[in-house]
Amino acid sequence: LSKGCLGVFDSGVGGLTVLRELLNVPIAYDRVLYFGDTGRVPYGSRSAETIIQYARQDVHFLLEMGAEEIIIACGTVSAAAMDDLRREFDDIPLTGMIEVSARAAARATQNGIIGVLGTQATIRNGAYQRQLQAINRDFRVISTPCPLFVPLVEYGFTGENDPITRLTCQRYLEDIRAGGADTVILGCTHYPLLAPFIAECLPGVTLINNGIEVAKALACPEESAGAPRVEYFVSDDSAAFDRNAGIFLGSSRQVRSTRIDIERY
Amino acid sequence: LSKGCLGVFDSGVGGLTVLRELLNVPIAYDRVLYFGDTGRVPYGSRSAETIIQYARQDVHFLLEMGAEEIIIACGTVSAAAMDDLRREFDDIPLTGMIEVSARAAARATQNGIIGVLGTQATIRNGAYQRQLQAINRDFRVISTPCPLFVPLVEYGFTGENDPITRLTCQRYLEDIRAGGADTVILGCTHYPLLAPFIAECLPGVTLINNGIEVAKALACPEESAGAPRVEYFVSDDSAAFDRNAGIFLGSSRQVRSTRIDIERY
Repeated sequence: LSKGCLGVFDSGVGGLTVLRELLNVPIAYDRVLYFGDTGRVPYGSRSAETIIQYARQDVHFLLEMGAEEIIIACGTVSAAAMDDLRREFDDIPLTGMIEVSARAAARATQNGIIGVLGTQATIRNGAYQRQLQAINRDFRVISTPCPLFVPLVEYGFTGENDPITRLTCQRYLEDIRAGGADTVILGCTHYPLLAPFIAECLPGVTLINNGIEVAKALACPEESAGAPRVEYFVSDDSAAFDRNAGIFLGSSRQVRSTRIDIERY
Repeated sequence: LSKGCLGVFDSGVGGLTVLRELLNVPIAYDRVLYFGDTGRVPYGSRSAETIIQYARQDVHFLLEMGAEEIIIACGTVSAAAMDDLRREFDDIPLTGMIEVSARAAARATQNGIIGVLGTQATIRNGAYQRQLQAINRDFRVISTPCPLFVPLVEYGFTGENDPITRLTCQRYLEDIRAGGADTVILGCTHYPLLAPFIAECLPGVTLINNGIEVAKALACPEESAGAPRVEYFVSDDSAAFDRNAGIFLGSSRQVRSTRIDIERY
């Protein structure tokens, strides 16, 4: 009995931190497709126009593969392309990172001061700030682009107490610390891997993880859950993706991805 | 009287450090085209197959625009795609970074120990090492991938004595320092912007700058020089490129780039 197919995509490996959380809860799907656009990563330093163009191709690919619902496991696409994607793909459920994380932050904050960390494109777009202030116009939102965070994660600067990553966090988080935020949204799917460093700079602050919030939103009753089989697709070398996937999935789960030509979609 | 058209390309803005040196010497062209593939930058963390595919499109675009000679102002493409490009485009002069910089390093070294810094793809490919040892098989070559260098430059971590960039240099350059290299090739066109940091870690070491070496190789007698007009093309937002270009060109030269769709080529 088919339970249907869920599509998940990101600009690269970061979205695996979302997939990891989705696989930790009961979901009503027995097939999950993950696409990482590793041939064109990163999206976070590109223009809105380019991000929208790439994201349209990503969605087209997942639809062609049979996805019936799509999770946009990329903070940058969620911020910069959500409206365009919803307009174009209006007959399929699309879930981005912004709404669920903004709602979680709104529930968590006590003092109404909320920090948002994201890529340049995410922060420039202002989607988190708009969503938070739509929930409560009195929220004070402190947004900081953290463009070096993704390379620090991707190039292995995440060892315990790495001084380069500590210094970078101190610099990027200074405004949020000084502003007294009690809740901070990790607005990019790479950032959970820096959570220990961020928590050290911001003691006592609640960190909101996109993946955990999306998983809560998607969880279904145990009895309707599938036992999802995951298929992985990438737009660059699959061996490199397969080697790194475990770091982001947080498990020794064996990953064997298939390379596709995303420029065709 | 037309003197012809030179094409220059890079994965993004880095190649402007090469263009800068080319514009400092007399060259036999009166039209120079620069293409930066800002919509798909960086190349240095991608597979050889993807780098070759992207570079072929970059060359096709420049040829279609009228280029009669092409400078590959990108260390990664020079290392990973040169043979394929020469095979495919065998009726046009193509100059990469490897040969000129390897020859300059071979001339400069006294002790025969040469360091090579580059992106992951450049170092993995081993092109610099092969070229150096083809010149002198007794050279000892110490190669180090420095993947965080490009983001450090692109995201503005180049202020005087920036402690994050200093620590990163110390870490990446440790093997070359300990190995006693007296000459180091800056094997990526972004790296000249980190030269003060690299020099601080490696006192007394000669740094080889790709752009300067290519400019020496291309320089012509003053009397045959053109007064080149430069046209800039990019594959992402042109305003962002135009804003950052001055940092790489090292001048207040006004840049107005045109956006093109590189996936069409």
